[in-house]
Amino acid sequence: MGQGNPEAAMDASSDEPVIALDLPPADPLSPETEAYFAKCREKLGLVPNVLTAYAFDEAKLTAFSTFYNDLMLGPSGLSKLEREMIAVVVSCVNRCFYCLVAHGAAVRTLSGDPALGEALAMNYRAARLSPRHRAMLDFAWLLAEAPHRVEEPDRARLREVGFSDRDIWDIAAVASFFSMSNRIASATDMRPNAEYHAAGR
Amino acid sequence: MGQGNPEAAMDASSDEPVIALDLPPADPLSPETEAYFAKCREKLGLVPNVLTAYAFDEAKLTAFSTFYNDLMLGPSGLSKLEREMIAVVVSCVNRCFYCLVAHGAAVRTLSGDPALGEALAMNYRAARLSPRHRAMLDFAWLLAEAPHRVEEPDRARLREVGFSDRDIWDIAAVASFFSMSNRIASATDMRPNAEYHAAGR
Amino acid sequence: MGQGNPEAAMDASSDEPVIALDLPPADPLSPETEAYFAKCREKLGLVPNVLTAYAFDEAKLTAFSTFYNDLMLGPSGLSKLEREMIAVVVSCVNRCFYCLVAHGAAVRTLSGDPALGEALAMNYRAARLSPRHRAMLDFAWLLAEAPHRVEEPDRARLREVGFSDRDIWDIAAVASFFSMSNRIASATDMRPNAEYHAAGR
Amino acid sequence: MGQGNPEAAMDASSDEPVIALDLPPADPLSPETEAYFAKCREKLGLVPNVLTAYAFDEAKLTAFSTFYNDLMLGPSGLSKLEREMIAVVVSCVNRCFYCLVAHGAAVRTLSGDPALGEALAMNYRAARLSPRHRAMLDFAWLLAEAPHRVEEPDRARLREVGFSDRDIWDIAAVASFFSMSNRIASATDMRPNAEYHAAGR
Amino acid sequence: MGQGNPEAAMDASSDEPVIALDLPPADPLSPETEAYFAKCREKLGLVPNVLTAYAFDEAKLTAFSTFYNDLMLGPSGLSKLEREMIAVVVSCVNRCFYCLVAHGAAVRTLSGDPALGEALAMNYRAARLSPRHRAMLDFAWLLAEAPHRVEEPDRARLREVGFSDRDIWDIAAVASFFSMSNRIASATDMRPNAEYHAAGR
Amino acid sequence: MGQGNPEAAMDASSDEPVIALDLPPADPLSPETEAYFAKCREKLGLVPNVLTAYAFDEAKLTAFSTFYNDLMLGPSGLSKLEREMIAVVVSCVNRCFYCLVAHGAAVRTLSGDPALGEALAMNYRAARLSPRHRAMLDFAWLLAEAPHRVEEPDRARLREVGFSDRDIWDIAAVASFFSMSNRIASATDMRPNAEYHAAGR
Repeated sequence: MGQGNPEAAMDASSDEPVIALDLPPADPLSPETEAYFAKCREKLGLVPNVLTAYAFDEAKLTAFSTFYNDLMLGPSGLSKLEREMIAVVVSCVNRCFYCLVAHGAAVRTLSGDPALGEALAMNYRAARLSPRHRAMLDFAWLLAEAPHRVEEPDRARLREVGFSDRDIWDIAAVASFFSMSNRIASATDMRPNAEYHAAGR
Repeated sequence: MGQGNPEAAMDASSDEPVIALDLPPADPLSPETEAYFAKCREKLGLVPNVLTAYAFDEAKLTAFSTFYNDLMLGPSGLSKLEREMIAVVVSCVNRCFYCLVAHGAAVRTLSGDPALGEALAMNYRAARLSPRHRAMLDFAWLLAEAPHRVEEPDRARLREVGFSDRDIWDIAAVASFFSMSNRIASATDMRPNAEYHAAGR
Repeated sequence: MGQGNPEAAMDASSDEPVIALDLPPADPLSPETEAYFAKCREKLGLVPNVLTAYAFDEAKLTAFSTFYNDLMLGPSGLSKLEREMIAVVVSCVNRCFYCLVAHGAAVRTLSGDPALGEALAMNYRAARLSPRHRAMLDFAWLLAEAPHRVEEPDRARLREVGFSDRDIWDIAAVASFFSMSNRIASATDMRPNAEYHAAGR
Repeated sequence: MGQGNPEAAMDASSDEPVIALDLPPADPLSPETEAYFAKCREKLGLVPNVLTAYAFDEAKLTAFSTFYNDLMLGPSGLSKLEREMIAVVVSCVNRCFYCLVAHGAAVRTLSGDPALGEALAMNYRAARLSPRHRAMLDFAWLLAEAPHRVEEPDRARLREVGFSDRDIWDIAAVASFFSMSNRIASATDMRPNAEYHAAGR
Repeated sequence: MGQGNPEAAMDASSDEPVIALDLPPADPLSPETEAYFAKCREKLGLVPNVLTAYAFDEAKLTAFSTFYNDLMLGPSGLSKLEREMIAVVVSCVNRCFYCLVAHGAAVRTLSGDPALGEALAMNYRAARLSPRHRAMLDFAWLLAEAPHRVEEPDRARLREVGFSDRDIWDIAAVASFFSMSNRIASATDMRPNAEYHAAGR
Repeated sequence: MGQGNPEAAMDASSDEPVIALDLPPADPLSPETEAYFAKCREKLGLVPNVLTAYAFDEAKLTAFSTFYNDLMLGPSGLSKLEREMIAVVVSCVNRCFYCLVAHGAAVRTLSGDPALGEALAMNYRAARLSPRHRAMLDFAWLLAEAPHRVEEPDRARLREVGFSDRDIWDIAAVASFFSMSNRIASATDMRPNAEYHAAGR
């Protein structure tokens, strides 16, 4: 592991490297990355460790954050909370520590309902959900767990509760994205920022 | 499904829409997208249907293709063939028709070894692989199948056959990416371009 | 469900019945049960909903609480925290909302380490554990997930990190107990007391 | 293992210790335990090895047997045979040698139908069951195998064949109990009394 | 189902058809089949229901019984008991009622050890086995459960306990055969002859 | 492995032995086997490696090929293509390299539709199938994956799309046969003839 390596990407709130690979950040960071990280600190109070991890290669960092920001913050028939709910349920399928901590905090904060964040992180079937949200999360769970089993009736169930085809794309895209980022985090033993644990409680 | 919808994104080699969602491409396509698709036709002889599918939203198309091109074609300690090998093995875990067809063709073409493409698409354990490739694909399989079980000894096995920490990031990133794209394809019933079936046989 | 049933066992912190079965508590409660519940309120600040649920039959309540108290609070080579750690990890295998909330709170409170409670509830492999605790939780996970696969080498691994045969019994007994109580909770849609969510953060 | 240890808890019908842990019974047994074991010998012709195993700690033995006797022999809308049927089906899910042998014998004896005991131990779907029993065992199987998937429609199916909410509690409690005792048995390599094999054939 | 069909293949010891398909036996049976069934009655005391089931097409019956007899009764480095042990363990993986009953009886009878038959049918890991038999049954279990994971080290483990390459073929062939016959039985709801239940107890 | 053994059964199109066991063919082959192999070469252009593998024991070879030929080439309500479709889908469940290559080629050749062969080998749910073929392959998949779950409603679904009870037997028998042959191939690392890769493209 990278522990003790003076150049490793470090978690600002602990002594620990953010991932178990020795991939020190670009040094110096480009002005664009500095500006982006400053904006994160301003808006979120921290630089998410996934971005610190990606900073070893700024082309990758930009590609990842552009892709992420379009998906999670761009225009969509899904609210930002709904996209975070999908993130948490997929991360529950994959038992991803990093993403459950970071996106569980987002669900708690955006919803103002800490118990909802807990339920989605533990077993969304125990949450009290609208039919729209239940259908959305059933689709996300199935896609995360057994993508080869998804078929037309699964899409039909989403249309029945009012989702458009564009919404279905977005549900699929968010669930698929976290199927990716859960694995990047698990593959590298990515550590969540300590601040997330208390957020939105 | 979108069959019969005159605006749906259509597969150029068939009468079928490329996905089972009614998401017609931007019309007209921007000059940048037209240029990118022309380059695809020139280099690959076709526009991959995944790009046609994404063309309903050019911001998403650009974000996806930038992310993809950095990952699969950018500088890396992994050869392009090795990255395609990972793509195929992850797609085998997920039984993804679109990606097995498209990236199976890439492995056959880049390797000049049709039987290798078949073996990786069916069961990589039956392929005759170097220790380096076996370790790389074991990691990719595990990460695709059970990401919550990946731990330090799995990374150590990659280092033992000579992979650097940067290489490990790339193996993880490629395996994770196809864990995403397999799901986008399965969620939308994405159809592979017919040309892939015969390529590299 | 029991919603709206005036006699159903109700969660004191919400309008919701504690389980999805119409099983009103004994009325009046016996003096012994009243005394036991008063003691819970004094020590824990609440009557755990699992006890409220069991109060429909005081013989069952007594049998359950006697069994539980011996196991979790009685003399053992395992500390109370260690027993709660096993409870949380088994509940993670079974994705049990009630037990993850209630015993996650216990781990946070007893350990003074909120992040430890989160990690055990999400994926104990991501926690920083001593070899003793890792072996203990590996055994608990395996026993919860695939009991038919437990064999002598699994017991041997516990002895190697210093557990006695009596300790092994206790590890097995606690992991087995939560394999039971997770299922009672899931079968009845048992709701955790709201107070647990904020405890020990 | 405890083989050869003169103090280990021994199976009366063999030379083998009853479990693979060196946990000798209390010596002497208390008069209460002696009386309980005498009653077992009188009624069953043997002391079940699970009780011999627990005799290393008489507080645990009493807690366990009180809990068990209430559940399996106490008042219930389920007959004793029905409770044993659930025990066997759950033990089949968990492939628990001890419980399949001991409770398979109980089903054969209580039902007078050896083939029923066999079918439940091997695959209850192959048994000729009433709709009541089929629904009861479907619920038990699901709860044993995937407790996080149990939801209101599963309880509704039990009500449809006539089970009351109290019956549903009992079905859940018995299935959950054997999810526990299967694991105690598997964790300790508990050996069934030899007499069970021929009983009720 | 075939119940009540006067032409269905009937179990001689019950009123039930042997399978849930209306496939009456050839009528009259050929002299060769009559002779074969007479020999079964003489040697086994019954005509196994699998043969009665196959009698709707005597070409299939002959092909099946020839294949079976070579495999289970022909020359081999494996004893007949060892082949039956594999049959039972594979049938346990597949939870096949017909084969567990029929071949469990064979293990009890050939071994003179009823508890061995029970243990192999329930969980072979609980049986007291020689290293040779443990390795043989580990291979059979893995091949039945996850054939795509079998590799050279699995064959090497068989050679280490003394099996020849010809023995390995036979272990594989028997385990594979019951992976087939378990499925024919389950697909058709095949009923075992009642006589098996009491045999060898 | 058998590599380099001058007597091992060799693949005619490569330097590799056909299986990873040292089981040289009968030498000389009997006139019957010679004639059978000559007929294979005439009709198929090759001797399938599974037959070369079996040639170490001509009684086994004859039993296997008789059983196979009745099943796959004999009279049936299923066309030869339909039987090959089942073979490929079962081999996909089991991720069997040998059978996917050999029977994938058969589907491509018999159907004249290379993309159909690919889809069945990768994920039959992505193929455009008639209701008859979808029901047939759903049954085959379930029987291959979880035989203990097959019940009367599964047979009923086949009857609903027009299959007779005899057809159901044949569907079950073919799916079961490949559950066997997939395992013989995986257990022995059987190599497919190289000619299959290009056939029917």
